[in-house]
Amino acid sequence: MTAIKRKKITVVGAGFTGATTALMLAQKELGDVVLVDIPQLENPTKGKALDMMEASPVQGFDSQIKGTSDYNDTKDSDVVIITAGVARKPGMSRDDLVNTNAGIVRSVCEQVKQQAPESIVIILSNPVDAMTHVAYQALGFPKTRVIGQSGVLDTARYCTFIAEELNVSVEDVRGFVLGGHGDDMVPLVRYSSVGGIPIDTLISSERIEAIVQRTRVGGGEIVNLLGNGSAYYAPAASLVQMTEAVLKDKKRILPVIAYLEGEYGYENLFMGIPAILGGDGIEKIFELELTSDEKAALDKSAESVRSVIKVITG
Amino acid sequence: MTAIKRKKITVVGAGFTGATTALMLAQKELGDVVLVDIPQLENPTKGKALDMMEASPVQGFDSQIKGTSDYNDTKDSDVVIITAGVARKPGMSRDDLVNTNAGIVRSVCEQVKQQAPESIVIILSNPVDAMTHVAYQALGFPKTRVIGQSGVLDTARYCTFIAEELNVSVEDVRGFVLGGHGDDMVPLVRYSSVGGIPIDTLISSERIEAIVQRTRVGGGEIVNLLGNGSAYYAPAASLVQMTEAVLKDKKRILPVIAYLEGEYGYENLFMGIPAILGGDGIEKIFELELTSDEKAALDKSAESVRSVIKVITG
Amino acid sequence: MTAIKRKKITVVGAGFTGATTALMLAQKELGDVVLVDIPQLENPTKGKALDMMEASPVQGFDSQIKGTSDYNDTKDSDVVIITAGVARKPGMSRDDLVNTNAGIVRSVCEQVKQQAPESIVIILSNPVDAMTHVAYQALGFPKTRVIGQSGVLDTARYCTFIAEELNVSVEDVRGFVLGGHGDDMVPLVRYSSVGGIPIDTLISSERIEAIVQRTRVGGGEIVNLLGNGSAYYAPAASLVQMTEAVLKDKKRILPVIAYLEGEYGYENLFMGIPAILGGDGIEKIFELELTSDEKAALDKSAESVRSVIKVITG
Amino acid sequence: MTAIKRKKITVVGAGFTGATTALMLAQKELGDVVLVDIPQLENPTKGKALDMMEASPVQGFDSQIKGTSDYNDTKDSDVVIITAGVARKPGMSRDDLVNTNAGIVRSVCEQVKQQAPESIVIILSNPVDAMTHVAYQALGFPKTRVIGQSGVLDTARYCTFIAEELNVSVEDVRGFVLGGHGDDMVPLVRYSSVGGIPIDTLISSERIEAIVQRTRVGGGEIVNLLGNGSAYYAPAASLVQMTEAVLKDKKRILPVIAYLEGEYGYENLFMGIPAILGGDGIEKIFELELTSDEKAALDKSAESVRSVIKVITG
Repeated sequence: MTAIKRKKITVVGAGFTGATTALMLAQKELGDVVLVDIPQLENPTKGKALDMMEASPVQGFDSQIKGTSDYNDTKDSDVVIITAGVARKPGMSRDDLVNTNAGIVRSVCEQVKQQAPESIVIILSNPVDAMTHVAYQALGFPKTRVIGQSGVLDTARYCTFIAEELNVSVEDVRGFVLGGHGDDMVPLVRYSSVGGIPIDTLISSERIEAIVQRTRVGGGEIVNLLGNGSAYYAPAASLVQMTEAVLKDKKRILPVIAYLEGEYGYENLFMGIPAILGGDGIEKIFELELTSDEKAALDKSAESVRSVIKVITG
Repeated sequence: MTAIKRKKITVVGAGFTGATTALMLAQKELGDVVLVDIPQLENPTKGKALDMMEASPVQGFDSQIKGTSDYNDTKDSDVVIITAGVARKPGMSRDDLVNTNAGIVRSVCEQVKQQAPESIVIILSNPVDAMTHVAYQALGFPKTRVIGQSGVLDTARYCTFIAEELNVSVEDVRGFVLGGHGDDMVPLVRYSSVGGIPIDTLISSERIEAIVQRTRVGGGEIVNLLGNGSAYYAPAASLVQMTEAVLKDKKRILPVIAYLEGEYGYENLFMGIPAILGGDGIEKIFELELTSDEKAALDKSAESVRSVIKVITG
Repeated sequence: MTAIKRKKITVVGAGFTGATTALMLAQKELGDVVLVDIPQLENPTKGKALDMMEASPVQGFDSQIKGTSDYNDTKDSDVVIITAGVARKPGMSRDDLVNTNAGIVRSVCEQVKQQAPESIVIILSNPVDAMTHVAYQALGFPKTRVIGQSGVLDTARYCTFIAEELNVSVEDVRGFVLGGHGDDMVPLVRYSSVGGIPIDTLISSERIEAIVQRTRVGGGEIVNLLGNGSAYYAPAASLVQMTEAVLKDKKRILPVIAYLEGEYGYENLFMGIPAILGGDGIEKIFELELTSDEKAALDKSAESVRSVIKVITG
Repeated sequence: MTAIKRKKITVVGAGFTGATTALMLAQKELGDVVLVDIPQLENPTKGKALDMMEASPVQGFDSQIKGTSDYNDTKDSDVVIITAGVARKPGMSRDDLVNTNAGIVRSVCEQVKQQAPESIVIILSNPVDAMTHVAYQALGFPKTRVIGQSGVLDTARYCTFIAEELNVSVEDVRGFVLGGHGDDMVPLVRYSSVGGIPIDTLISSERIEAIVQRTRVGGGEIVNLLGNGSAYYAPAASLVQMTEAVLKDKKRILPVIAYLEGEYGYENLFMGIPAILGGDGIEKIFELELTSDEKAALDKSAESVRSVIKVITG
């Protein structure tokens, strides 16, 4: 009969992104963390969780981190973060990848639906716009409680490059990205600023274009450098920022993948747009006036999401 | 002509421990971080550093993290952390491991001596007591500026297990470990407490013994669970705590591997003992009165360190 | 219909201690804060709250701080901190002071009982042992949810002086205080350590005695220096540490004023003892074995508390 | 012969703003803090510093805070913050106030010049634009090292009101204020945004105008509520943000009072403009294109500063 209990956060997928996310959540004492992966990976999952716990006396956090393959441990989670999924392997078609990950996400969501029916769910699995849609259908949760991550990460990359370009604090850079992840990203340059000053008064249009382009392929840049694997530090930080917004009911305005029912002219589509993220999940969607170029780019992004959705069978 | 400059910290070795250390240093804005590894790993090192930088706008830190294989980038570092070294592979004798890593540490130290002659150096490479000795010889630095890490991690594990046993906050557990890493660890149970209360009044001697034993093999427990690799979260946190003590001149009392010249009756030996860690490195060594059992255990630990040192050729 | 709501903390009394407490709670984003004082002080209370809120964009906290004189604003608080009470004025007898503050605490508790019947209540009003008893009676709450603050502050002072004596980090000093506040404080020197090392092996008994004595009169030392008023920074920090332990269910082991029913041989008495503080309030009381000197000192402290209680009429 | 030393920060004036600033600096472990006031207030200054130090074991910071009236204690400070000065009393003309505070600032600066000739100086004393000029002349330091605070505070107030208006996180509000403090403030509404979205698309122009007007008189609103005294929490937080930017060489873009030599068409004038604040102090001034209305408002603000300067004799 505890009067006040810690929040509970489940992270599905104990790969680099999931594990890093778990640690960052615990360091912030946002709640107890359950790190769950498939039974074949139960021991490594437990090993990572234990290693993190052993950092807790040094870093002074009292969040528990539990590694498991048993979804019973995720019961009544307040937030569930889904990072599960495979990476594209040589010889694998994009459609195969989509269907494989859709199957994984669906199967995870069945468990989440059972164990944590009141949770707010944040999806990172790739391709994320489509996987958020899959999760939405599999969970049957209200749209406010199913949220995809891509814009926070894209914006973080964009801001990193701007800060580097101008040699200023990252704390003062504000960027803005609409639409899908990667190539389908629609950065709103006119809404970007440093210390409140529009970047187009400080950076040449050539350099801005180069920064935008670098952001579009930001995931690939890391993949190419690593040679084996993909980014996980910035993706984890992005997931944690969204989770913190929810668990502290912060009413952050963040670019998130949300279910649109008419906003921006789209129906039945998950798309990256700016929203208020708080204790109810997505509490409000901001509908911005777009230039015709921006709208065209967003349409292209929407088309791209729809084409992936079409691939998904079952 | 900057009046006030950020501190500079080099992390040698961009494996999991080195990379995690780099991130934690940056998150605390302890200084700019140079993550250096061998030329063959230059791209992955750059990739990890870039991924971390892309987390900075989300987490709000302004430390720069640079991945490189060029030691010129480490010039004038204030602190250098050495995590480089190979893990023992099947068929490799312990002596081969020791000599391989001694060679690596020596070669790293040659660079450090050139680039950062005023730095304070913290060593994690294994076997750490011996590698700290190797670094000391190769660097030619005063003994106060060559420090090995093992006791902070061993103590962190010990405290984790005690906190779990009693279901209390890790913030209130104090433990204490002398001597070498792992099997040679000498925990001073009588100096362990929770909230100031000696643990032997709260936990049965059987359970304490089990906790001590689990601590001794704490590294192995993680290795066994992971199946492939060893702990890095808690080791990184331990390195960061030591670095923070130095860079903020905090005068922390931490168990560190220090060069003994008569203390505890040992000469010309690196051994884990409690010391004050501050802006000068090791500022004071505490010489505790030991029971005869404890002294015997410490002697055994010393013997073990000496036997490894003897193996090292060249 | 918010799924996840911020915690709510009421601070009664908007004097320096109450206001500083409110700010520190908000900075840690432990919840929304209601700062309440009497109607005559409504405007200054609102002014302080507004000034704090205006610090929030700079410091990045999203806790709301509301200044008010209306207890309806405190409805459903999770934690209530009571700092209300008058200071002793010239010509005022101790008994007058006790009865005045008892009246204030009783009247506050009537409101708390109405507005926040499930809250955990932390009392600072002076004389704190007796006022905690008054609150307990007025609230009719279970004993686990009525907690007095004195030992955290006494211990903090004690640790400050030890850290200064040895020129070591405050993070490594552990102290321990039983019994009443001030003169009635019973420090357990044998349970005090720095970095785990017992202080009596590092500091002479004369210096320890001087430190103990300075701690006993620590409140008076500040009063004498200020000339007009009493300490509030360290008292506020102490209240915040206790509140954080509760709201994050941290299971901290802290010296608190708890209701004893047989522990240490006392019945129906509020007394400073070490306890686990978590989401249920006082979750466990530690009963330490005392030397006969310590027990005698504690008896004297108990007698002192009882004599104050006897003064209270009504 | 310490290799790495803590930074040293002097806070002149131990009133509410100065004391709160000292505490916030220490909590962030930005360096050791010397809180200095006049000899008649030496004891209260010592009392406040001691009270803060006694919070350090609870909050875990190792910064030293020293209360003093002896400027020798401020020797070699890296940053000096000047909060000294009197408030306007009934019957005191504005000119009397200006000359009294100019005398105080001059006398403080004589000491700073002696004791900390390499320091970066941040001024809060009122009227701040003029007092920054007085300090500049008295110090004889390069213009990059003499900085006035007003825009960070004005902006913080403005952002607080916008966050409240829209019920969004303060972390996502960006505002922008040029020119003098208070009535002379020139807010650039077109550069204000929440989550990157321009506020004029979210808030009616009437409400924006009301928010701007409330910001202009933000200091007075607090004064009126308090009844006795003026704001200190948000001013202290603002000073700390500027100090952190300098001591961590963060390259923050903040609105600061800087010496203009031609920028915005002004010569030999201290005026609030956006600048990069880093380890060299003011590292770059941003010259924004202004509308004719904005320029007119800024001219009025400049005129106002000049008229105060003219008052100053001696």
